[in-house]
Amino acid sequence: MIQRVLTGITTTGTPHLGNYVGAIRPTVQASLEPGVESFLFLADYHALIKCDEPERIERSRLEIAAAWLAAGLDPQRVTFYRQSDIPETPELTWLLTCVTAKGLMNRAHAYKAATDANEAAGEDVDANITMGLFSYPILMAADILLFNAHRVPVGRDQVQHIEMARDIAQRFNHLFGRGRDYFVLPQAQIDDHVATLPGLDGRKMSKSYDNTIPLFEGGAKGLKDAIARIVTDSRAPGEPKEPEGSALVMIHDAFADAGQREAFHADLRGGLGWGEAKQRLLALIEGHIGPMREVYERFMAHPEQVEEILQAGARKARAVATPFLKELRQAVGLRPMVAVPRPAAKAAPAAKAAALPEFKQYRENGLFYFKLTAPDGRVLLQSTGLAEGREAGGWVKRLKTEGASALDAAPVSLGDGVERPTVDAALAALVAAQE
Amino acid sequence: MIQRVLTGITTTGTPHLGNYVGAIRPTVQASLEPGVESFLFLADYHALIKCDEPERIERSRLEIAAAWLAAGLDPQRVTFYRQSDIPETPELTWLLTCVTAKGLMNRAHAYKAATDANEAAGEDVDANITMGLFSYPILMAADILLFNAHRVPVGRDQVQHIEMARDIAQRFNHLFGRGRDYFVLPQAQIDDHVATLPGLDGRKMSKSYDNTIPLFEGGAKGLKDAIARIVTDSRAPGEPKEPEGSALVMIHDAFADAGQREAFHADLRGGLGWGEAKQRLLALIEGHIGPMREVYERFMAHPEQVEEILQAGARKARAVATPFLKELRQAVGLRPMVAVPRPAAKAAPAAKAAALPEFKQYRENGLFYFKLTAPDGRVLLQSTGLAEGREAGGWVKRLKTEGASALDAAPVSLGDGVERPTVDAALAALVAAQE
Repeated sequence: MIQRVLTGITTTGTPHLGNYVGAIRPTVQASLEPGVESFLFLADYHALIKCDEPERIERSRLEIAAAWLAAGLDPQRVTFYRQSDIPETPELTWLLTCVTAKGLMNRAHAYKAATDANEAAGEDVDANITMGLFSYPILMAADILLFNAHRVPVGRDQVQHIEMARDIAQRFNHLFGRGRDYFVLPQAQIDDHVATLPGLDGRKMSKSYDNTIPLFEGGAKGLKDAIARIVTDSRAPGEPKEPEGSALVMIHDAFADAGQREAFHADLRGGLGWGEAKQRLLALIEGHIGPMREVYERFMAHPEQVEEILQAGARKARAVATPFLKELRQAVGLRPMVAVPRPAAKAAPAAKAAALPEFKQYRENGLFYFKLTAPDGRVLLQSTGLAEGREAGGWVKRLKTEGASALDAAPVSLGDGVERPTVDAALAALVAAQE
Repeated sequence: MIQRVLTGITTTGTPHLGNYVGAIRPTVQASLEPGVESFLFLADYHALIKCDEPERIERSRLEIAAAWLAAGLDPQRVTFYRQSDIPETPELTWLLTCVTAKGLMNRAHAYKAATDANEAAGEDVDANITMGLFSYPILMAADILLFNAHRVPVGRDQVQHIEMARDIAQRFNHLFGRGRDYFVLPQAQIDDHVATLPGLDGRKMSKSYDNTIPLFEGGAKGLKDAIARIVTDSRAPGEPKEPEGSALVMIHDAFADAGQREAFHADLRGGLGWGEAKQRLLALIEGHIGPMREVYERFMAHPEQVEEILQAGARKARAVATPFLKELRQAVGLRPMVAVPRPAAKAAPAAKAAALPEFKQYRENGLFYFKLTAPDGRVLLQSTGLAEGREAGGWVKRLKTEGASALDAAPVSLGDGVERPTVDAALAALVAAQE
C-alpha cells in the first residue's frame, strides 16, 4: 500500500546548513522512494504562534520555499503547499478541538516547559503563554489527519504530538465513526541516524545558539566567512590533528563520500593545517550548494513563480482535503438540508427515474450549448456558446460524473431565479443515478 | 452611523415558547429598527461543543431556522446565515488564538464552573472538560469580530465573553494595527426588560428543567396539552384569584395587549376558573402562533428551501468576511508572494504604464469576445463568445475595477499554460492603475 508521509516546516527562520543536512536533503531523497506519497507544507499558521512580525513570516515563507525547490524538491511528485492556503485545516482544527480533552493539552511537553519556567521565575504559571502555544497540538493533529498521513518524520521532542494526534483521531473515530474509521492513526517516524550538524562552536547548529552557517543567504562569500569562523583547536600546520569530535570534520563528512572522508581524515592526522582544511571544506560544500544557489536566487527574484507553484500545490492538496472534510462535516451533523423524499418515489422506482433533471445539448448560430432542466421544465443551468460540440459534450459528462465540484470551472450560469443549492442537489441526483 | 448588531443561536434544541418571547420576537422586532444592520446566525460550530449527536444537530438547525423564518425574520433585511458556511470563522479563530492569553481563558466563568464542579466531586480539575469548552470564547470573538459588530445582545451570563472579545480585539489591533484599528470593540447589549418566561412549574422556562411549552412542535394539540399542565393553585372556580406571581398569568401577559391583560386579571380576581383561564390562554397564544405554525410546517417539509435561504445569507455574510479576512491575513504576514518591482519602473513612470497588461475586445462570427494580454503579448484570459457587445464591455469594466474577485463569475478561461496567480497579479496591477 502507498504510504503517505507528511512533513511541515515552520516558517519563521532562514534555512541554514543544519536544516539542509538534517531535514531538506533527507526529505527530498525520501520523497523519491517508490511507494511513498509525500506531503510537504509551509506551516505558516504555526509560525504565527511564535512570531508577530509579519515581514519576517513573509520573508521566511519565501526563503524556505525557494530553498526546498532549489534543493531538488519536485512539486510534480510531492504535494508541496502552504498551510494557510488550505481553509479545511482551521475548520478541521475546530472539529477536533471539540473532541480533545483539555487534560491532554495540559500534559504537552512544550506547554509544561513554559509553565515550569514561569514557576521557577516566580511568575504566574500561565504568564506570557498564549492559547496558540497551548492548543497547537490540535492544529498539528488537523494537519496530519486531514490527509490521513501514515507516517510523520519528527525529532524525538515531537513524538508526543503524534501520540496526541492518534488520541484525538481515535476519539473522533469512536464518537462519530459508526463502524467507519475516518482517520488513519499516524505513526511517528524517528530518524535517529539523520545527522545533526554541529554549528560554528561545536554545539548543535541552531539559530538560538547563533552558531549557524547560512545555506544560501549571503552567497558564496557568506559561506566562506562562516566557515572561517568554525572553532578548531590551536594545533599548527604540520602537527597531527584528531578528526574525531571536530565540528569542522563533522560538517565536512556530512557532504563527503567515503573516499573523500578517508582522505580528509588521513590528511588531518598527517598535519594538514586548519586553514587549508577550511578551504577544502568550502570547496566541497560549494560544489554541492553552488548550483542550487543559482536556482534559489532565481526564485527569490521571482516570488510570483513560487506563488504559482504553491497555488498548484494547494489545488492538489485540496483535491484531497475538500471532499474529505465534507464527509467529516456529514459525520458530526453539519449537513446540507435536503428535500424530504416523497413517499411516492419509494413505491415506484420508475417515477423516481422520470423525476431526474436532464441535460440537453443544442446548436444555435454556429455555437454549441447545453442546459440542465428540472423535471418541471425549469432551466437550472445554461451554458455559454462553445465553439466545439465536443467541448459541450465533455462538460455535460463531467457535470454528470463529478457533480457540483465541476461547476465552478464550467462555462455555465444559473437559470433565472435559481439558487446554487438547487443545482447542487440536481447534480448530486444525477451523479447518484450513474452509480 | 449604522449600528451592526449580531446574534448567534446555538443549534442543539427545539425552540420553545420561552425562546420565542425572550429571543426570537424581540430580535425580529429589533431587526426592523432603522439604522440597524442585523446579523443573525445558527451557531452550529458552537453546538458541536456540547453535542456529539449528529442527528440532533441536524434537526435542531432546521427547526431553529424554520422557527425564526416563521416568526417573521426577513432574510432580505437581516443577514441570516449558518456559522459553518463561513470558513473565514475558523480561520479567524486561529489568528485570534495566537494572540489570546491562556490566562484569559482560565478566568472564563463557564470553565471555572466546570472545574469547581469537578473539585467538589473530588475529580481531576479538568475531568471531562474539552478544549471546545475551554476555548470557545475565542470562537465567539471570531464570530463577532469577523463582522465588526457594534452590539451583541446577550444575557448577563454572557457579558464576560463580550469583554474577552474586546480584549482579544485590542490585542490584535495593538500587535498588527500599525495605526489602524482592524477591529471595532463590541459592546454587550443587556436587555434586562425582556421577559423571561416562566415554565409549567413556575421556574424559568428551560429545557434543563423539563418545564417547557413547545413553540411549534406537536402542533395546536401539543400547545393545548402543555397549557393544561401549567401548575396553578387549587382555588376552585368562583373563588377570587391573585394574578400576581402566577406562571399562567405571566405567560398570558407576554402575549396580551394592555386591554387583554387588564380584563384577564380582573376576571381572575372576580373568580374565573383556572380551566377556563387556560382555554383563554390557549386561544390567545394560538391566535399569535397559529399562522406562524403553518409557515413553520411548510419549511420543515421543504428543508431545501431553508438551505437556499441560508446559502443566500452565507453569500451576503461572506461578501463582508472574505475581503476582511484577506486584510487580516495581510496584517499578520500571510501574504501572496508577488513579483519584485523592477527598478526601471520606479525611475520611468512611462515605462511602468507601458508594462501594464491590456484588455482587448473583438468580434468574430457575430459574437463578441475579449481577452487579457500580458505586456509580452501572452494571452492571460480568453472570454467565451458573448451575444452582446455590451456584455463583453461590462465584464472588462468589472475585471478592471474589481480585479480577481470578479473572475470566478466571468465567462473566461485561463490562457494556455497560464496559472491563476499570474492573472490575479495582472488584474491587481490594472486595479491599482485605475486608482
